[in-house]
Amino acid sequence: MIQRAVVLSTGDEITTGKIVDTNANYLAEKLADIGVDLVAVLTVGDVPERLQWAWKSAIAMGEVVISTGGIGPTADDLTTETIARITGKKLWMSDEVVDNIRRLFASIGRPMPENNKKQALFPEGAEIIPNPLGTAPGFRLEVALDGHSSQLIVLPGVPREMKPMMENWVVPWITANRGSTRVFAWRSFQTFGISESALDEAVAGLIKPEEGRVAFRASFPQISLRVTVEGEPGDTQRRLEELSVRVRAALTDNIFAEGETTMEEVLCQIFSERKLKLAIAESCTGGLIGHRLTNVAGSSRYFKGDLVTYSNDMKMNILGVSEATLKKFGAVSEECVREMAAGARKRAVVDVAIATSGIAGPDGGTPQRPVGTVCVALDADGTSVSRRYQLRGTRDWVKLLTSQIALDWLRRYALGMPIGDSALFRR
Amino acid sequence: MIQRAVVLSTGDEITTGKIVDTNANYLAEKLADIGVDLVAVLTVGDVPERLQWAWKSAIAMGEVVISTGGIGPTADDLTTETIARITGKKLWMSDEVVDNIRRLFASIGRPMPENNKKQALFPEGAEIIPNPLGTAPGFRLEVALDGHSSQLIVLPGVPREMKPMMENWVVPWITANRGSTRVFAWRSFQTFGISESALDEAVAGLIKPEEGRVAFRASFPQISLRVTVEGEPGDTQRRLEELSVRVRAALTDNIFAEGETTMEEVLCQIFSERKLKLAIAESCTGGLIGHRLTNVAGSSRYFKGDLVTYSNDMKMNILGVSEATLKKFGAVSEECVREMAAGARKRAVVDVAIATSGIAGPDGGTPQRPVGTVCVALDADGTSVSRRYQLRGTRDWVKLLTSQIALDWLRRYALGMPIGDSALFRR
Repeated sequence: MIQRAVVLSTGDEITTGKIVDTNANYLAEKLADIGVDLVAVLTVGDVPERLQWAWKSAIAMGEVVISTGGIGPTADDLTTETIARITGKKLWMSDEVVDNIRRLFASIGRPMPENNKKQALFPEGAEIIPNPLGTAPGFRLEVALDGHSSQLIVLPGVPREMKPMMENWVVPWITANRGSTRVFAWRSFQTFGISESALDEAVAGLIKPEEGRVAFRASFPQISLRVTVEGEPGDTQRRLEELSVRVRAALTDNIFAEGETTMEEVLCQIFSERKLKLAIAESCTGGLIGHRLTNVAGSSRYFKGDLVTYSNDMKMNILGVSEATLKKFGAVSEECVREMAAGARKRAVVDVAIATSGIAGPDGGTPQRPVGTVCVALDADGTSVSRRYQLRGTRDWVKLLTSQIALDWLRRYALGMPIGDSALFRR
Repeated sequence: MIQRAVVLSTGDEITTGKIVDTNANYLAEKLADIGVDLVAVLTVGDVPERLQWAWKSAIAMGEVVISTGGIGPTADDLTTETIARITGKKLWMSDEVVDNIRRLFASIGRPMPENNKKQALFPEGAEIIPNPLGTAPGFRLEVALDGHSSQLIVLPGVPREMKPMMENWVVPWITANRGSTRVFAWRSFQTFGISESALDEAVAGLIKPEEGRVAFRASFPQISLRVTVEGEPGDTQRRLEELSVRVRAALTDNIFAEGETTMEEVLCQIFSERKLKLAIAESCTGGLIGHRLTNVAGSSRYFKGDLVTYSNDMKMNILGVSEATLKKFGAVSEECVREMAAGARKRAVVDVAIATSGIAGPDGGTPQRPVGTVCVALDADGTSVSRRYQLRGTRDWVKLLTSQIALDWLRRYALGMPIGDSALFRR
């Protein structure tokens, strides 16, 4: 039976405060999804006796122990060695893994450094967990120590390597081996344009505790709401559908997607389906909108380009904003962003263009245009909309929120919904 | 003597993944600053036996234990009760604290709920730590358990209440009571263009364990190396300087900065100082370079704009790339990026421009130009350099690494160093 888990996070970079351990949070969420109780998260630095204490404690408390970090090529990567020491298991070197690491280095035209061989060492009895995105594979090992038996799952600390290994290998493995017939079903709703407390109020009383569990998760600027139902197979899916109907009715168009997706993925789908071509003109967001859109594979089907005109000269020369507009209203004005959007649409020969200009801060604010003042405009055949917003927060945050507002406008435009009506953030 | 600390983070919201525990990271950093070694961070949910295990383990390992969370008014706030139970200490109620909580409620026109009285309970012998921003004060308590004596510091979980208590009370208290004159000095070196294992090899044998400690941290695509020296005041700084000289000599121009900074911050400084104006032309990176540069406040001093030409039409119309070049060599070619960079420099009227074009994947690769093929060019008065690279990894990663290569080229150009000579990533 696998009911209880312990997560181990190792690394001096965590215990000296250099990085925030987001892996533990990610693993906690994945374990909660499959109904595994996370007993404890133990975090220690790269010190042999502390690692040994943490592993022994974890094995005593959890039927599964998931560890991240400590399997790199350097001398302070001690995870595999620690496990071998406390369990008395010998280490063997996988020729296959050595060959693979060598191939990875060869593909970038370099010889494999000798110390990378360390990443091919495994305790006897370990099953290798493939790592498609890095040199170090992980492994699973069943151990028994002081009368406790436990499944050890060893993963790399780099989140972009660890997460696919967790999702594609570890979660299915635990689900198949936990020895329970109870299942979980869940659905996520991605929202924008409604604050977390308003969201909480909107769903309060909608779902009773015995019907299902509601959890919010803010990954700014996106807030997701997740409904989880637990029970016997066959029944949970139907009950989840019932609860989903209620959530959709309560939140209407603040839900921009269901499932694990992002605004930029939604846009790629909507714009591709409708064969709409898009261009962007950015000032305060500095390229972030283009960056986000092009994070999605296939975005070249609809996204033609992004004219980031940070200076007034560029706004005039590249986008054709008039000098009179800049003089009279300034670069952070609805008048300016309307001309930017129209200019981008014309220069890029596309169906729709959106433009942003604002004061991201921390400097550059004035009493008339304080830091966080942002203007957005959308230009399309027969449509020219602009709005001014007053946002709060740091430079990063103003950029990010502005980009999200712009993407939401594009989604609403393509779906034929009203644009810029939300009271949120409006000045 | 207070040399070793343990941090306790408690709360179901952490173990179920609803929130990321940023308190532990904050405390780790504050402890490192005053040379206290953080042995472990123990995180458990609001379950009595797990809390007891965590407190007992913490007292056994740390001369000081700092806990956040679990001192609110509700039934699942169990910190004070747990400490009383494991140490056998009685609880007493502070009338002063009750009065204070009552006054706080009165000031917002509400009566004090009866369960808030719980926040005025303290184990006998506790010293109260004032909480200027909330209802629940913290406390310090010296305990002895199983032969270990330890100072327990109990703080609220809300970061805006906890942080001023840590800075104004706990840090001064530990500094005054730790019974040591030893101090720590450290320096970080930010590197690029050298892999983590090559970095490890380069510094191996450079610094003996008794001289100082070397730690790496990869925050891709930036790898930092930190050297820490411990000793008596007056001596550590000089020894750190000695070790730093060795590190600089070994890594030469792979170090792009010292201290906690980023490539984009370094560029902002170098370009501003040299009064160089910059423009970008991006294809595969989609706006990421502009986004990164504009994350730095003050970037408008040197960054004029970024022409993201995702389609061939845009490359021709906006940047003046010739149709013949696109037909003969394709958009992902050194010929194309050279024309893109030259076009951007001309259109933006700047001193230097850089251009990127590539296949970020996962689709779009060909045998001649597999996914990860990337071309970069820099154009300036009398300088036109281009290179072709073969990168590996996901779409995000190819974009990010390409942006870092481009930024490093710009740094090297502005500092008068050779460009594009690194063997790393080269095809």
